[in-house]
Amino acid sequence: MPVDAVPSTGAVPTTRPPLSPTPRSTPSREKGRARSDRAELDAVLDAGLVCHLGVLLDGSPVVLPTAYGHDGRFLYLHGSTGAGNLRAALGAEISVAVTHVDGIVYARSAMHFSMNYRSAVVRGRAVEITDPDLRMEALRRIVEHAAPGSWARVRPPNRKEMAATLVVAVDLTEASVKVRAGAPADDPEDIAAGAVWAGVLPMRQVFDPPIDSPDLEPGVAVPDSVLARVSE
Amino acid sequence: MPVDAVPSTGAVPTTRPPLSPTPRSTPSREKGRARSDRAELDAVLDAGLVCHLGVLLDGSPVVLPTAYGHDGRFLYLHGSTGAGNLRAALGAEISVAVTHVDGIVYARSAMHFSMNYRSAVVRGRAVEITDPDLRMEALRRIVEHAAPGSWARVRPPNRKEMAATLVVAVDLTEASVKVRAGAPADDPEDIAAGAVWAGVLPMRQVFDPPIDSPDLEPGVAVPDSVLARVSE
Repeated sequence: MPVDAVPSTGAVPTTRPPLSPTPRSTPSREKGRARSDRAELDAVLDAGLVCHLGVLLDGSPVVLPTAYGHDGRFLYLHGSTGAGNLRAALGAEISVAVTHVDGIVYARSAMHFSMNYRSAVVRGRAVEITDPDLRMEALRRIVEHAAPGSWARVRPPNRKEMAATLVVAVDLTEASVKVRAGAPADDPEDIAAGAVWAGVLPMRQVFDPPIDSPDLEPGVAVPDSVLARVSE
Repeated sequence: MPVDAVPSTGAVPTTRPPLSPTPRSTPSREKGRARSDRAELDAVLDAGLVCHLGVLLDGSPVVLPTAYGHDGRFLYLHGSTGAGNLRAALGAEISVAVTHVDGIVYARSAMHFSMNYRSAVVRGRAVEITDPDLRMEALRRIVEHAAPGSWARVRPPNRKEMAATLVVAVDLTEASVKVRAGAPADDPEDIAAGAVWAGVLPMRQVFDPPIDSPDLEPGVAVPDSVLARVSE
């Protein structure tokens, strides 16, 4: 089981293969949008909060939003052992996509409307992680991905919780990254016609100030790791 | 071909079946998060910009981010006739998910970290739309979904563009909507232990002021439909 080779220290080898080493992960269209640097995959995964997991269920694909973590070599997912969807993925080929929309591209003609985005699409086999240390490390990465600085601050998973949790790794070798940025790409005759506005409406995600849980004991301060995420 | 029954006026029947009419679209877990009102599906789809489309390609699922439109009965997708991914979906069972992350839920224990979200997961058959009027109407919905108020303002698709475009409908009958909102759900003993902050870091998407295309003719004003989207 290749996933047992994941170092629990989270160290990532310094040399990694380029992206898209297989024909099926090499974009055949809009080649100008394709990226081949692994650092760009890391950046897209780092910036995401949920991924969309595609699994085959009773012969047809189902897409499910779910939290994740990653270490540059593997993407980690978790779920309840009672959840049929993740269990169905075990040992099977799955796909995971992470997408950021950065803006709406307004063109001068309907068919040139577009979006600026960064996306990563991974294809690989879902492998259950069974080693206790690696399972804990994967869960740490998932929590730290969603809430950096939180793992060491809170109660770790106990034996009962670990027994009820399925932890899955997906190899990040076969991934494609696409990026669209910048202005609309209108046809010359539409540009020449003038008088129609074209441009980009930029979009981003912001964090608002945190809200204490209603059952919070008085006097417990919001951690700096949370406050640091609030948008200006 | 049932999609030919789509009225080109976009009228939606006033009585529609509740969500989750089949076992496979009825959530088996976290039932408290499930919604059964079609208005909630409409709301999730209305608020999204990209969906994640899951198709079976060479026997394994692939998840692809893509633009969409909908009219409450059908979800519409489009792509180049040369794009293998959407073509592979024709006539086949596919899945589409739209997800909004509304906040990070910080708990007092690692396994209770969560996210507040609204998600819709649709399963259905991808049907090519061939009727010229319905194709145009579907494209109008896709453009208006991403950029409300734009369709009538810009050059419509011409014959050549229409010939190069694949338009697909997915029936929205089989859909599940899930919503998580509010505070963390910690275990009583973790709450009693006190001293660990718990709460929600709210998150939202904002639009920044529009950026003119560099090739814009001087003096062309940004339309009100664009300015109206800019966040305060």
